[in-house]
Amino acid sequence: MEKTIKIGILGLGTVGTGVVKILKKNQEDIAKKVGAKIEVTKALVRSLDKERVLPKEMLTTNASDILDDPEIDIVVELMGGENPSRDYMVRALSNGKHLVTANKDVIAKYGKELFDIAEKNNLDVMFEASVGGGIPIIHPLKDCLIGNKIEEIMGIINGTTNYMLTKMTRENVDYQTVLAEAQAKGYAEADPTADVGGLDAARKIAILASIAYNSRITVDDVYVEGITKISPEDIANARELGYVIKLLGIAKEDPENGVEVRVHPTFIPNSHPIASVNDVFNAIFVTGDAVGNTMFYGRGAGELPTASAVIGDIMEVTRNIQHDVKARVLCTCYENKKICPIEESQSAFYVRLLVKDEPGVFAKIAGLLSEENISLNSVIQKRKVNNCAEIVFVTYTVKNAAIREALAKIEALPVVTEISNVIRVHEANE
Amino acid sequence: MEKTIKIGILGLGTVGTGVVKILKKNQEDIAKKVGAKIEVTKALVRSLDKERVLPKEMLTTNASDILDDPEIDIVVELMGGENPSRDYMVRALSNGKHLVTANKDVIAKYGKELFDIAEKNNLDVMFEASVGGGIPIIHPLKDCLIGNKIEEIMGIINGTTNYMLTKMTRENVDYQTVLAEAQAKGYAEADPTADVGGLDAARKIAILASIAYNSRITVDDVYVEGITKISPEDIANARELGYVIKLLGIAKEDPENGVEVRVHPTFIPNSHPIASVNDVFNAIFVTGDAVGNTMFYGRGAGELPTASAVIGDIMEVTRNIQHDVKARVLCTCYENKKICPIEESQSAFYVRLLVKDEPGVFAKIAGLLSEENISLNSVIQKRKVNNCAEIVFVTYTVKNAAIREALAKIEALPVVTEISNVIRVHEANE
Repeated sequence: MEKTIKIGILGLGTVGTGVVKILKKNQEDIAKKVGAKIEVTKALVRSLDKERVLPKEMLTTNASDILDDPEIDIVVELMGGENPSRDYMVRALSNGKHLVTANKDVIAKYGKELFDIAEKNNLDVMFEASVGGGIPIIHPLKDCLIGNKIEEIMGIINGTTNYMLTKMTRENVDYQTVLAEAQAKGYAEADPTADVGGLDAARKIAILASIAYNSRITVDDVYVEGITKISPEDIANARELGYVIKLLGIAKEDPENGVEVRVHPTFIPNSHPIASVNDVFNAIFVTGDAVGNTMFYGRGAGELPTASAVIGDIMEVTRNIQHDVKARVLCTCYENKKICPIEESQSAFYVRLLVKDEPGVFAKIAGLLSEENISLNSVIQKRKVNNCAEIVFVTYTVKNAAIREALAKIEALPVVTEISNVIRVHEANE
Repeated sequence: MEKTIKIGILGLGTVGTGVVKILKKNQEDIAKKVGAKIEVTKALVRSLDKERVLPKEMLTTNASDILDDPEIDIVVELMGGENPSRDYMVRALSNGKHLVTANKDVIAKYGKELFDIAEKNNLDVMFEASVGGGIPIIHPLKDCLIGNKIEEIMGIINGTTNYMLTKMTRENVDYQTVLAEAQAKGYAEADPTADVGGLDAARKIAILASIAYNSRITVDDVYVEGITKISPEDIANARELGYVIKLLGIAKEDPENGVEVRVHPTFIPNSHPIASVNDVFNAIFVTGDAVGNTMFYGRGAGELPTASAVIGDIMEVTRNIQHDVKARVLCTCYENKKICPIEESQSAFYVRLLVKDEPGVFAKIAGLLSEENISLNSVIQKRKVNNCAEIVFVTYTVKNAAIREALAKIEALPVVTEISNVIRVHEANE
């Protein structure tokens, strides 16, 4: 007789509902593919009153009904957030249940704790859905690309901000307008801080960097800038210079300074494949010493795309149970690498500033840049704003510390009214 | 003590050399990642006289030195072609060795035979490198996306033709010129038939379709058209209409007519992500019922990219050996689906034809199209060519049989000089 693998789901929100729907819709094929029936037996919800995708008798408001049920093989955590998700996951693993989760917050912060319990108890922990929604990226990094030394990961890994930046680029609207619209459409939350501030992307790049560099990197190791300061002027200047602005999570390794992990808006040359990833789509651009450039593209969020990744993980755990494979790939962090301080990190920079409209101003600025050995790639003298002139320049690659030093001196010049924005630039030849 | 996994390589050409190089360069990390040392012990070559990446004492011209060596755990077949590769792979598996191969010819034609022997002997067969070079696509389809019903696969899976079409598009050169240049650069072989005729892509889409639709699809099931008839006029017309021409491998399932698998040049709307995949890059665009649209992009060939995929497979087999996992994922073809005949397949079509330059000609053509219920999406009356007028039209989606019928009648019209080309069109809203 065919075996039945029993699933308990923690959280029946958007993703949980999607998981139940797809497991039901494709149940026949799923059973054939893994040689076992996959059955959701119970789901934890906050309230029993709402109409759900599962009948009432399968719902519970008591986590113990799932975590302590000896019948359940796999616990699927889809509540999000740190609390009480983290405790529930620890309890599930301690009780001998395999774990599938989409929870980037917990994986990025407490991943090690979970892997350790899983290893001790010979269990699987799968989290493909925690980064890039439905896009396969965790497995390709852990399996297919594992022979490579990863040179760089560069990802559009937050759909909300990509939607907003795409809209700002196409329609020339300002940040506040596009945020309000994204909120109205449900693409941005009522409190959008984690998305627009870059924290969501920081959690995801911490997870990817940990896998790529085999060293535990938590969200606290990530340098973060959000998109709240991007203005229509910056977007227009980027266009004029042949770039688009994207919020990127970037991880790379410097043999001297350690692993560099950051999230910030970035000027990307139009010709780069990641530049045409628009709307809510995500893409992760991975460069390996053997494979060269690769890119993984798809929907980074949403009911069914995220469910796709969760179900892939459930089916993989099921195959492992069927083949009696235990804890085959768990924590891959066998190194303890140092984190490169942001001051040591190098980039090209776009700078937009307002100066008094009088002769010799640019010469003074150029002089200060030159003192820090900063060379200019391009300069545009722009519009007049309230009797001031707007100057835009793009530097060649410099150390963060040098540009900071130079900008402090420039800001102190009496002829400089304000430094309006500073954005990192991905050079076309990088 | 750390275990050593012994590898025998059949074929030390471009890819074989790349595998040895990367295994050596990254050996320390590779050992840490899989918990075992991976050691190449012997390689089969045609001649012992050439300078190789391995010392002479590790080379042999006798396949038995590898296939019959009880010390060797994994045989890595990188010779390509059907003979004697197929026999060697059968012997390796029969002798209890795991198999890693990049051989699309054999997998697309004799995959079932290999999987059957492997299953009987509890062995792994891995072939990530057989499609898309370094791009992870076989594993994502077999694992991450496995919960999906795959709606369509659409891939640029031949680098030579993509290089040629990109060059023709950018530089307005003709097919013969660009072929000669591709040959000079080593991007096209002296006999380019398999690439430009579409056979190479047909093998790869047969492999992808077999996995996606869980039914054995061989290269003989694939409808194939190459790029040899693409002219600068077609490229220019595509541009004018908002498309680029790409050679695509396409697989989809029609509930009534079965699985449709074809390779042909295709008009792709500029806005489609696959339209900007240029030069020798490959990309596979996969649409699933849960995940929606995803794309996997990277280098589809070359020494190190292909080696990346081969080494990923070697490391996965090594992990399986370490965890005593046997034949975990082999043949996934548990169905026996029928193949949709090309006549039943539906597409929009671009047609370019030469007609006598006299009144009423287009009305006659339009009349014949209308008899077959074919509607027109766009029409351009083009240049004069030797006292003839060139007409270009694009239809809406029609059955292949209908367009064939209509074109036969149109060709028989005395006013029609020639039907210059007919190319399928991927509609923007598809």
